[in-house]
Amino acid sequence: MANAKQLTGAGLRGQIAGKTALSTVGKTGSGLTYRGYDVKDLAAKCEFEEVAYLILKGELPTSAELAAYKTKLKAMRSLPSALKEVLERIPASAHPMDVMRTGCSMLGNLETEHNFNDQQDATDRMLAIFPGLINYWYNFSHHGKRISVETDADSVAEQFLWTLHGEKPSALHTTVMQASLILYAEHEFNASTFTARVCASTLSDMHSCITGAIGSLRGPLHGGANEAAMELIEHMQNPDHAEETLMGMLARKDKIMGFGHAIYAESDPRNAVIKAWSEQLAAANGDTRLYDVSVRCEAVMWREKKLFCNADFFHASAYNYMGIPTKLFTPIFVCSRLTGWAAHVMEQRADNRIIRPSAEYTGVEPREVAPIDSRG
Amino acid sequence: MANAKQLTGAGLRGQIAGKTALSTVGKTGSGLTYRGYDVKDLAAKCEFEEVAYLILKGELPTSAELAAYKTKLKAMRSLPSALKEVLERIPASAHPMDVMRTGCSMLGNLETEHNFNDQQDATDRMLAIFPGLINYWYNFSHHGKRISVETDADSVAEQFLWTLHGEKPSALHTTVMQASLILYAEHEFNASTFTARVCASTLSDMHSCITGAIGSLRGPLHGGANEAAMELIEHMQNPDHAEETLMGMLARKDKIMGFGHAIYAESDPRNAVIKAWSEQLAAANGDTRLYDVSVRCEAVMWREKKLFCNADFFHASAYNYMGIPTKLFTPIFVCSRLTGWAAHVMEQRADNRIIRPSAEYTGVEPREVAPIDSRG
Ligand SMILES: CC(C)(COP(=O)(O)OP(=O)(O)OC[C@H]1O[C@@H](n2cnc3c(N)ncnc32)[C@H](O)[C@@H]1OP(=O)(O)O)[C@@H](O)C(=O)NCCC(=O)NCCS
Ligand SMILES: CC(C)(COP(=O)(O)OP(=O)(O)OC[C@H]1O[C@@H](n2cnc3c(N)ncnc32)[C@H](O)[C@@H]1OP(=O)(O)O)[C@@H](O)C(=O)NCCC(=O)NCCS
Repeated sequence: MANAKQLTGAGLRGQIAGKTALSTVGKTGSGLTYRGYDVKDLAAKCEFEEVAYLILKGELPTSAELAAYKTKLKAMRSLPSALKEVLERIPASAHPMDVMRTGCSMLGNLETEHNFNDQQDATDRMLAIFPGLINYWYNFSHHGKRISVETDADSVAEQFLWTLHGEKPSALHTTVMQASLILYAEHEFNASTFTARVCASTLSDMHSCITGAIGSLRGPLHGGANEAAMELIEHMQNPDHAEETLMGMLARKDKIMGFGHAIYAESDPRNAVIKAWSEQLAAANGDTRLYDVSVRCEAVMWREKKLFCNADFFHASAYNYMGIPTKLFTPIFVCSRLTGWAAHVMEQRADNRIIRPSAEYTGVEPREVAPIDSRG
Repeated sequence: MANAKQLTGAGLRGQIAGKTALSTVGKTGSGLTYRGYDVKDLAAKCEFEEVAYLILKGELPTSAELAAYKTKLKAMRSLPSALKEVLERIPASAHPMDVMRTGCSMLGNLETEHNFNDQQDATDRMLAIFPGLINYWYNFSHHGKRISVETDADSVAEQFLWTLHGEKPSALHTTVMQASLILYAEHEFNASTFTARVCASTLSDMHSCITGAIGSLRGPLHGGANEAAMELIEHMQNPDHAEETLMGMLARKDKIMGFGHAIYAESDPRNAVIKAWSEQLAAANGDTRLYDVSVRCEAVMWREKKLFCNADFFHASAYNYMGIPTKLFTPIFVCSRLTGWAAHVMEQRADNRIIRPSAEYTGVEPREVAPIDSRG
């Protein structure tokens, strides 16, 4: 079981920045819980909408509540025309996380959260719209196609794959996507969630909080790691080649994306789940290279550096087996983590004080402004 | 002189979240310094571009350096057509801070900062473009006019007023805008700057950091306070009416926007500067009502609650005297604070560890997922 590291040093590591009832990370005896439930238990037994409901409202839904929630989300999928027009003006060369950030921000202009009473509806709307939003841009900019986002997909997971590929996905792919979205949904005070809470603490609106969080998730030290892991493994021909590549990188003191964690000490509990799915996808696919090289990477990193795979590493091969372009990996993370971000915003609002830390000053001593002509 | 409060409690108050060489807030003997210079000294002797240069590069420019910097900024003012097209799709009813956030985010799609070596250019481009960006939207959505942002304005201050009103502003208005931009340029680890640093700590790009910061500044507890102060004072007929209004609000325990501060204990050093300019503008304007009621508000709040005006309160009357619509107040703050945000991003990048605090868990104990049909 994952235990927490000794946490000290820069980056507010180990410092308590607030309270949460949403999740625990790295507590003894349980690696990751959402509202008391072990993430592995949730990933094995639930679909993503159940977990979104749990995170946002506090309890798992009954059958009737789940059906009503899914019906609500399905009815909220269409993209406003002004938003489509904005997406059509973003070039194919753009970073898809910049597209998500801009799409979310634009939505905030068109459907502003004027009142905190609207926070659940604003969140549900984003949950419903985000998969179609990114795939509308992707299909338009890359294939010149204006897709319809009003599919018959039954879930957020299916909606993502359906709007990406233009057809109903296989049952296996939908099931893996459900699990993936559950694994990524919530993770306490990680950098993007903390961004959302800092923004919320000024009493800003929901779209500002989520837009800011998307920008933070974009970073390669955070959500961007699954893409970087893919770029690494796709060049590995076989396990021996993987080992050789990694040994070279370690000798050069390169950072290996998809390994290590700010809080977990020995393992990331999400890894076992996505690794098992990656293995199943590899078998179904017939070509197991990406899975095999990933397994070797895991062994080498543990042997050499006692570094373990975080949630992102086996996501790379899993998503690739599902035919998802690498550049869309982190946007999927957004479609899921949105639930955690929004729940943290709601929690911050319910008991708020503006988040305003202090800094240690390392600059020059007091001095006087010299006339411009005597400077230099 | 402003001293720091005893800082404790929620919101990371008083906790050191990192190092900075950029500014000090509330240190004994000096209320606010940028790189060692007292903000009052800077506001009295400099123009905004000098201070932007100081904050971003560490030293005040020589005449030649300043001229070169201003020439660079002037050459970077034009709006990409895709950005104009996005701005034209944002309705007049939108919150101008949502427009800034979206405009900044869109720029990140069109001119992505691919490499941290581009951080200064990316920042300068935003400094050059932001005044025209918001006023292009404002004039298009409110007056149906597509303005030219390639004016002959000599400075960011003049560019803002020129693109808003469509003509060269008076010398007095330009001078006040210079001072205002200087006052707002930098303020240590306030909530929006801290948002930018958290984002930067994931090694995300500059536009993500600034977009996130704009979202945080939007909140009424932060940058939104100058607009809220305006909405308060515009209904005050005269000083006695102001006093009556405030006494009623205090009795109802309302929060009065533009008063109080997370760090300063007794005064905000920026207030004296903008208050003096507001008085001059009132005299030049002939109608001193807004200034007079503001002065009474200041006296009443200190007498009743020992609360003092922060930077935002007298900005309300000053901006109003300059013919600036209330909804554009906080976007001006963006045009200025951008310098501080970007400098903090650069500083974070130069000595980085991902900002990832911990939380105190207040939720339910571990529990097992029940089958959906047995819930409720
Ligand atoms: C997640 C991460 C940002 C945590 O950062 P952190 O809390 O500062 O990490 P630690 O304090 O545990 O780092 C301890 C040491 O291990 C090294 N290390 C950590 N992760 C590493 C990795 N993936 N590859 C190589 N070295 C790594 C660090 O550089 C550090 O060495 P140093 O003390 O010489 O600088 C970091 O592990 C990382 O950058 N991982 C790769 C990016 C990634 O996968 N992100 C997704 C996270 S879910
Ligand atoms: C700036 C601000 C957010 C600082 O927050 P903070 O660090 O939590 O403030 P403090 O700890 O000093 O607050 C102490 C008490 O004074 C009260 N108070 C602070 N500012 C107040 C104001 N403007 N009007 C009425 N009461 C105020 C607080 O509510 C608090 O009372 P409580 O203990 O009963 O809750 C806060 O003063 C505020 O909301 N001001 C109005 C918004 C504003 O002008 N923001 C711009 C800042 S530059």
